[in-house]
Amino acid sequence: MAVTVERSIADKTCIVGVGETEYARHGGIADKSEFRLCLEAILKAAADAGIRPDEIDGFASFGYERPEPVLIQAALGIPEMRFSNMVWGAGGGGCAAAVMNAAIAVHAGLCRYACVYRSLCQGQYERYGHYRPRPRGGPHMAPFGLMSPAQMVALTTRRHMHLYGTTTEQFGIVAVTLRAHAQRNPRAVMRGKPLTLVEHARARMIADPFRLYDCCLETDGACAVIVTTPERARDLRIRPVRILAAAQASNPGWGLGPMGSHNMPIEDYASVNSRVLAGHLFAMAGLGPADIDVAQIYDAFTGIVVMALEDFGFCGRGEGGPFVAEGRLAWPDGGLPVNTAGGLLSEAYLHGLNLVIEGVRQMRGTSTAQVADARTCLVTSGGASGHKSALILGH
Amino acid sequence: MAVTVERSIADKTCIVGVGETEYARHGGIADKSEFRLCLEAILKAAADAGIRPDEIDGFASFGYERPEPVLIQAALGIPEMRFSNMVWGAGGGGCAAAVMNAAIAVHAGLCRYACVYRSLCQGQYERYGHYRPRPRGGPHMAPFGLMSPAQMVALTTRRHMHLYGTTTEQFGIVAVTLRAHAQRNPRAVMRGKPLTLVEHARARMIADPFRLYDCCLETDGACAVIVTTPERARDLRIRPVRILAAAQASNPGWGLGPMGSHNMPIEDYASVNSRVLAGHLFAMAGLGPADIDVAQIYDAFTGIVVMALEDFGFCGRGEGGPFVAEGRLAWPDGGLPVNTAGGLLSEAYLHGLNLVIEGVRQMRGTSTAQVADARTCLVTSGGASGHKSALILGH
Repeated sequence: MAVTVERSIADKTCIVGVGETEYARHGGIADKSEFRLCLEAILKAAADAGIRPDEIDGFASFGYERPEPVLIQAALGIPEMRFSNMVWGAGGGGCAAAVMNAAIAVHAGLCRYACVYRSLCQGQYERYGHYRPRPRGGPHMAPFGLMSPAQMVALTTRRHMHLYGTTTEQFGIVAVTLRAHAQRNPRAVMRGKPLTLVEHARARMIADPFRLYDCCLETDGACAVIVTTPERARDLRIRPVRILAAAQASNPGWGLGPMGSHNMPIEDYASVNSRVLAGHLFAMAGLGPADIDVAQIYDAFTGIVVMALEDFGFCGRGEGGPFVAEGRLAWPDGGLPVNTAGGLLSEAYLHGLNLVIEGVRQMRGTSTAQVADARTCLVTSGGASGHKSALILGH
Repeated sequence: MAVTVERSIADKTCIVGVGETEYARHGGIADKSEFRLCLEAILKAAADAGIRPDEIDGFASFGYERPEPVLIQAALGIPEMRFSNMVWGAGGGGCAAAVMNAAIAVHAGLCRYACVYRSLCQGQYERYGHYRPRPRGGPHMAPFGLMSPAQMVALTTRRHMHLYGTTTEQFGIVAVTLRAHAQRNPRAVMRGKPLTLVEHARARMIADPFRLYDCCLETDGACAVIVTTPERARDLRIRPVRILAAAQASNPGWGLGPMGSHNMPIEDYASVNSRVLAGHLFAMAGLGPADIDVAQIYDAFTGIVVMALEDFGFCGRGEGGPFVAEGRLAWPDGGLPVNTAGGLLSEAYLHGLNLVIEGVRQMRGTSTAQVADARTCLVTSGGASGHKSALILGH
């Protein structure tokens, strides 16, 4: 009897190792190449899992990852690589989808230890916040004035404010809350730099309504995560973190969304395209929003967090602003602590894979802003692109 | 009991639909955009399978495919897309790996009908045969004079000639044989243009030892293939083609191979990096080279075919030239008819996905150069890159 699509890979795989490099503002660790940082993260993840690096036999990534698996294979002396793929999308579309791809590969038996990785050195290569002509075709929004992600997401966020009365102060509360979480995290680029609502409100405008501290960091670094089956995990010294659900989806008719076509249905034009995704994800896990103890929400911009809270059902449509204003995202006792390591806004911008790693820490009980008795963690990926994906991790 | 990595997805999934557009030399169908051609191929594949296009709920591709799945989803009105990924490699690394990715997704239960597709209009976008600076980093061979795939593969091919006495006439036999197969195929761009060994030998030099007819076509078009489970296939009107094995691998230490680093081990420097791959593939299928009735071998250049015959064990190391010279690749009675639709050299260059489709035709008994009683077909992908993959299809 075939498993249903709804449940498919629910709780069939697990994460047994995580690794990350130092994170730094662009150019801060320019003495290490992006490729070297990538290898460093993978070696740390293998060590964390207690496996030899050459036991890794699959790779998954996303966002046009530059260090290709065959180069990593050569560098690490991996004799048998049996799986490698990546998710489309240049802008953080798929860190959770990459974990999903690794999960189906190990679940199908195609490889033993799949490594999900992302290395992103904006100081060494392009900076996403700057305009660049897209090299390989596709929709071009530049003639309409949309040349950076901040501008693109600003439109849906502005509409959210128009429809629901969401305020820039509410976005400020997101930024300030996550910055506070970062103060406890020695890896966070913004540690030692607490933020106030006044500073948030007075910062320079980037793309209305987004001011400087509404926008994520531009950093250098790399992350890696090892996925395997529960059977293999039993032979490792580390307690596995269960992947209760992993899903990828786009609302009907969305197209590339704010990062591209802006042709999504009007009823979605104040969302982050995660309504359908959330339905699949919770159905797979057999859980609902009320069962989530802690969340790592892709926070390329503060507005995304507010809209994601609604899409994933933590509050009703249009209620994201008040939800945030009530302090619900705050550690330790907001009720739904979000981005407990500081997130993309205040820890580092590793295209969301650092959110997966913080989710693993929460499930292991080792976060620097540990949520007491946390047994489930939602991790979302992607800003508002069409390549949305999410995970539910379990204790 | 978990399935072994060796067998994993052996005979667990199948191909139930194929679709392809008209193929034309660059610019020949420029009134249809690449995206439109992509959709056309997918619609044809769905019709072939007897499913509605909006039943497709997953997509897999390779080679930095431009039409992203979210755009296709919007265009086809697909309500639920639950899976999409692609394989690295700009140069045909992964048509079989894309099928493998689709196979593990449907096998894991993540989606119902996964569509593998590739649209490639060299007339509308870049032409692979021309030098272009690589836009996103990675190894650059240009300072060493290696600016096009023909130049890169020429080096390993020249070494094969040096080591084993392989001749340019033997490469000519590959080109002439495949051109003869194309004469029976109404889709083939080179139909109506038979080739002789004299014409091959007199054609202009491209990259020694490759002359014009040693090099694949540069065409416009698109291909699509629908993968599902045997259980779902039973409800369709078409007889499924079994995916007996699907594997991806690179020899140890290869790196990006001739398309990149040229740092592969010296003992591999007259091969197409498929030795390890072939081992995995045949082990998964429980078959050996002698069990293969017909083969579709990635023929970006004639030298690749000669070396692939050795890597996949159809003959010994260094015996590829004589194997070809004996007429073994010829339809109908060479023994191992190869690229029975004309291949990338004479049908079209769709990065190998057209080879998968011809493989399906052979298993259905509908090729224009049908091999009598063919029950197994090998399909290889990738020139000599690190992202090698292959399939064994079954009747």
